[in-house]
Amino acid sequence: MSPTAKPRTAVSGPIATKPDADTRILHDYIEQCSNWGRWGDDDEIGTLNFVGPEQVRAAAALVRRGEVIPVSLPYDERGCQDGGFRQNPQLMVTASGTDYLAGAQDQTPWGPARGFGYSDDVVILPTQSGTQWDSLSHIFFEGQMYNGRSPDLVTATGATRNGVEKGVDRFVMRGVLLDVARRHGVESLEPGHAITAEELQAAADSAGVEIRRGDALLVRTGFMGARRGRWEDYAGGPAPGLSLHTAPWLHAKEVAAVATDTWGVEVRPNEIDHIQPLHSVALVHMGLALGEIFDLERLSEHCAADGAYEFLFVAAPLPLTGASGAPLSGLVIK
Amino acid sequence: MSPTAKPRTAVSGPIATKPDADTRILHDYIEQCSNWGRWGDDDEIGTLNFVGPEQVRAAAALVRRGEVIPVSLPYDERGCQDGGFRQNPQLMVTASGTDYLAGAQDQTPWGPARGFGYSDDVVILPTQSGTQWDSLSHIFFEGQMYNGRSPDLVTATGATRNGVEKGVDRFVMRGVLLDVARRHGVESLEPGHAITAEELQAAADSAGVEIRRGDALLVRTGFMGARRGRWEDYAGGPAPGLSLHTAPWLHAKEVAAVATDTWGVEVRPNEIDHIQPLHSVALVHMGLALGEIFDLERLSEHCAADGAYEFLFVAAPLPLTGASGAPLSGLVIK
Amino acid sequence: MSPTAKPRTAVSGPIATKPDADTRILHDYIEQCSNWGRWGDDDEIGTLNFVGPEQVRAAAALVRRGEVIPVSLPYDERGCQDGGFRQNPQLMVTASGTDYLAGAQDQTPWGPARGFGYSDDVVILPTQSGTQWDSLSHIFFEGQMYNGRSPDLVTATGATRNGVEKGVDRFVMRGVLLDVARRHGVESLEPGHAITAEELQAAADSAGVEIRRGDALLVRTGFMGARRGRWEDYAGGPAPGLSLHTAPWLHAKEVAAVATDTWGVEVRPNEIDHIQPLHSVALVHMGLALGEIFDLERLSEHCAADGAYEFLFVAAPLPLTGASGAPLSGLVIK
Amino acid sequence: MSPTAKPRTAVSGPIATKPDADTRILHDYIEQCSNWGRWGDDDEIGTLNFVGPEQVRAAAALVRRGEVIPVSLPYDERGCQDGGFRQNPQLMVTASGTDYLAGAQDQTPWGPARGFGYSDDVVILPTQSGTQWDSLSHIFFEGQMYNGRSPDLVTATGATRNGVEKGVDRFVMRGVLLDVARRHGVESLEPGHAITAEELQAAADSAGVEIRRGDALLVRTGFMGARRGRWEDYAGGPAPGLSLHTAPWLHAKEVAAVATDTWGVEVRPNEIDHIQPLHSVALVHMGLALGEIFDLERLSEHCAADGAYEFLFVAAPLPLTGASGAPLSGLVIK
Repeated sequence: MSPTAKPRTAVSGPIATKPDADTRILHDYIEQCSNWGRWGDDDEIGTLNFVGPEQVRAAAALVRRGEVIPVSLPYDERGCQDGGFRQNPQLMVTASGTDYLAGAQDQTPWGPARGFGYSDDVVILPTQSGTQWDSLSHIFFEGQMYNGRSPDLVTATGATRNGVEKGVDRFVMRGVLLDVARRHGVESLEPGHAITAEELQAAADSAGVEIRRGDALLVRTGFMGARRGRWEDYAGGPAPGLSLHTAPWLHAKEVAAVATDTWGVEVRPNEIDHIQPLHSVALVHMGLALGEIFDLERLSEHCAADGAYEFLFVAAPLPLTGASGAPLSGLVIK
Repeated sequence: MSPTAKPRTAVSGPIATKPDADTRILHDYIEQCSNWGRWGDDDEIGTLNFVGPEQVRAAAALVRRGEVIPVSLPYDERGCQDGGFRQNPQLMVTASGTDYLAGAQDQTPWGPARGFGYSDDVVILPTQSGTQWDSLSHIFFEGQMYNGRSPDLVTATGATRNGVEKGVDRFVMRGVLLDVARRHGVESLEPGHAITAEELQAAADSAGVEIRRGDALLVRTGFMGARRGRWEDYAGGPAPGLSLHTAPWLHAKEVAAVATDTWGVEVRPNEIDHIQPLHSVALVHMGLALGEIFDLERLSEHCAADGAYEFLFVAAPLPLTGASGAPLSGLVIK
Repeated sequence: MSPTAKPRTAVSGPIATKPDADTRILHDYIEQCSNWGRWGDDDEIGTLNFVGPEQVRAAAALVRRGEVIPVSLPYDERGCQDGGFRQNPQLMVTASGTDYLAGAQDQTPWGPARGFGYSDDVVILPTQSGTQWDSLSHIFFEGQMYNGRSPDLVTATGATRNGVEKGVDRFVMRGVLLDVARRHGVESLEPGHAITAEELQAAADSAGVEIRRGDALLVRTGFMGARRGRWEDYAGGPAPGLSLHTAPWLHAKEVAAVATDTWGVEVRPNEIDHIQPLHSVALVHMGLALGEIFDLERLSEHCAADGAYEFLFVAAPLPLTGASGAPLSGLVIK
Repeated sequence: MSPTAKPRTAVSGPIATKPDADTRILHDYIEQCSNWGRWGDDDEIGTLNFVGPEQVRAAAALVRRGEVIPVSLPYDERGCQDGGFRQNPQLMVTASGTDYLAGAQDQTPWGPARGFGYSDDVVILPTQSGTQWDSLSHIFFEGQMYNGRSPDLVTATGATRNGVEKGVDRFVMRGVLLDVARRHGVESLEPGHAITAEELQAAADSAGVEIRRGDALLVRTGFMGARRGRWEDYAGGPAPGLSLHTAPWLHAKEVAAVATDTWGVEVRPNEIDHIQPLHSVALVHMGLALGEIFDLERLSEHCAADGAYEFLFVAAPLPLTGASGAPLSGLVIK
């Protein structure tokens, strides 16, 4: 009944996967595509390293019309979450115009108002509830996160390494829209449609763009357009998305980022008996920036109209220290 | 004792200011600088209208080196708020790497983890606690907000008009750094230092830049550099900042936005017996985008080194529907 | 285009109801039942005034077995809200045991841990998401709240009058279970079942209890038991509940509080063309404490077993200054 | 560079304390006072087991005058936290009376308002920011929590064992006020004053009360009264409080709970080179319910006036599932 001093408790971590066929596939891709150590042991930004001054200059040179197209959904209670796994953002107003009109601000902390008034608010924002970039601390696989770091660096106070605030200055890129839905002539790909490397390449080819090192690929499935407003299981349910088997192609292309108009980038249900296996290859091992819930509808119309599928893309996540992901106010500039 | 049906209750709004000398000054500037109606009765974005395709193209053409400099402070509990008027952002972790290692994620909603794990989080973010743009619904004066709208459009659920989500696509601008502190040869201007139009012009002149329609002026007082880390009353106390009397100059220059490295853009204490009078002129009546708590330290070093004080500035606020202001991940691209 | 100083803006309040038949019914009950002024113009606690030392002593004297039965649902994400109108409570952990085991607490703000560790958390709690008492600032009718006060006393910072923190010390009462569902021999009354004064009286009679001044009536419909765990539209949809026409009976009985196992005390859909009309009579005009989402299942079993339907009831709301309602850890003591 | 499947990662827990003199003291008290296993391996409520029907009946029999004295501080932004370690509660209003008056509620989700309106709110409540009970999952020592459980049961989603929602029905007790400050004739004991078992006993003796199994001891230092309103470092700084050396006395008395008017029950700075050592003995090993930030000022006046230092004490924490602690609306009933 009485306790005694104990040595450090050994805590067991997640069980290693058994070497079945599915796991072998996953391990093969990981071995083939890993960027661990490629930019040094201290690296925390992965493929964002592909973006340098040369890429920034080239991207800026793509601005011809001076037109700007946002790709972030508004953040509010009408967002795509159904409250099961995550909530939608909630704006909490702490000072209102109606209060001001009712005289509640006639006296301020700074003296009599003399006609002056203000509104103020606080947002409760699940970092991954709307348009967002995953950080490299968001996913773990077989006891590790990007660049071989231990998940114990991600505690109840956030991530001390690989957090989303790292690499903010790399989100000035050449963006390329791969409009897979439009190329297929459909409003939206069906849930379960696994987009292949061939489909991605065909979308680029038909758009007349070459994919280059440091690009951000914006892959449109049409699924957001099809579900907007009556979201149902948009966030978390079956969805079209990238096939696991695109990993080597993404790796070979040396893209900096991939974003889709779906909840989770990759196809759901997953193609093998692993949870979000493309995340384990691309995010954990390539260190690839994955963007989710991007609104590509207006951009799709715009590119179809002017035929220009490449552009300056400025889309830095909010620098939320240690966060697993972050919202952004992403802009395409053409 | 017993109630009876009553007509609509008349609620009295804020008392109009008395016509004393200070109020006359304020009214004169308002009359002189107002943009109400200039872009139509439906306008909700004010001076952001000065930014059009021509300005975007010209700004993009300023990119020469391909270098990127962030101007947003990280959002976290070490921010500049002292908890009196506003709190700092708080990251609340809802799934951690330590949980994963301890086996708490071995079973997921999607089945056995098989090595997979994740982190997740929610941020409680006072919209004006860090680097942020004010919306045109943030300030009221004499019973009205920008473009003559009633403050009763800003309720406990947010602003239905003039919210910060409007005009997000205009935040691609030519930015100009006006490094007033450096020009004065000081680490920081003193609290109470009211920066004049002449000082702003002199900073532009000595930097060799002409201020143009649609520019964003980034005015550096040095105050953030001086207070960073031991913030004390940085947020809310005496501070250097723009003089009320810069209003006509700002109006004449037709700038789209002004941002500073202080809490409230304008000098504190205020120069006349009105609360934040430059806000009442510039935000309420000009519809000028005001940016606060911008981190201009690294930019200051950069511009001093390369001599280039004009640049592409991409700094769209997070589209928080109906919010009084919003954080941003602002980037200078040179 | 240029503004001028304006007088206080006249803001129109809610339109008075038209004198149709339904409104006349409502006004009749209001006139008949109003307690405005009964306990003075300063009163903020309404029928809680019926509870005094005599009632407390009498209630305490009911304790015979020394048994304690909680009546509050746990507050967590599995609560009855479906996220439409309100969210469920969310516990946000800020320090965890897994962090401690991983060594993240080895250094504390107070020095080396030397074996010590801790957990900590923050709850985001919609005040009316679970078991709760309405405050007398929660409902307005025809431009007024309880005791003739103006709703402008309830701003974005809370209620300066009639808040839920008033009267906390009165929540030591004689409680009486009126088990309407059990008396009807059903698991649950049907949605839309309007419980009459006769049914309430019959439940009391069959339980052998006399209703007395200052009592808390716990009215069981069985609806929580029927819906628990698969809540669907429990919070906000059709429900059994008290008829509007019970108002005069509740008034005559001089009860201090009425709580039910439903979302909104009164029957839904409402019986007349007014929203929650019993609230307008009972809460706004009688100042009656209304309790919602009480868990009466275990209590029902207990009372059926021992035949004792009267007991000491201690159920003070959390003193959340200025709140519209508050959760509680309510206990029946028999 | 390429990863391979790894076995479960061994995560090291907190270092065991070295066997120095201070640690030996702590281990001696732990060995002497531990209740692990006393109520079975499944027990999650510790000394609350001392409260049973007999204690409840005896406590209820103490009600003589019918007077009720609250012991919880209001929960609001004027609370005792200085924002360093924890924040104060924040009420976020989501529907206001000023909105209603301005007509913003004229249309409701349930149709035209016809005079009806409402307020609503959400509280962001750090569970340990105000008056609160610690749960038995709040403190860990040498790799364990109460009853020998592993801290890995406390994850980023809360505690699956030892959470504060367990044992809610035991918080109906005999309470005893030990007014140490009044007995010493001082407004407040000084920070650093370590209250001894002798002082506790003397306070009981001079009050003419015998301490019994299952009692809740309310120990008044006067520190809250001295600091109220200008809290400074009340929450976290030096404070009077119980000496570590009271542990055997508390154990022998078989009390169910101890609450003080200070931040942390025990004296600060700590008496030995361990962090909150009384917590490690009393909470972790005895399973003693510790209550903090109780407002005992009015109770002190009341007891001094009527000479009755024993009473019915009903003080159940809010059943926040899995929380490390919880607020309460505690009542003394005399």
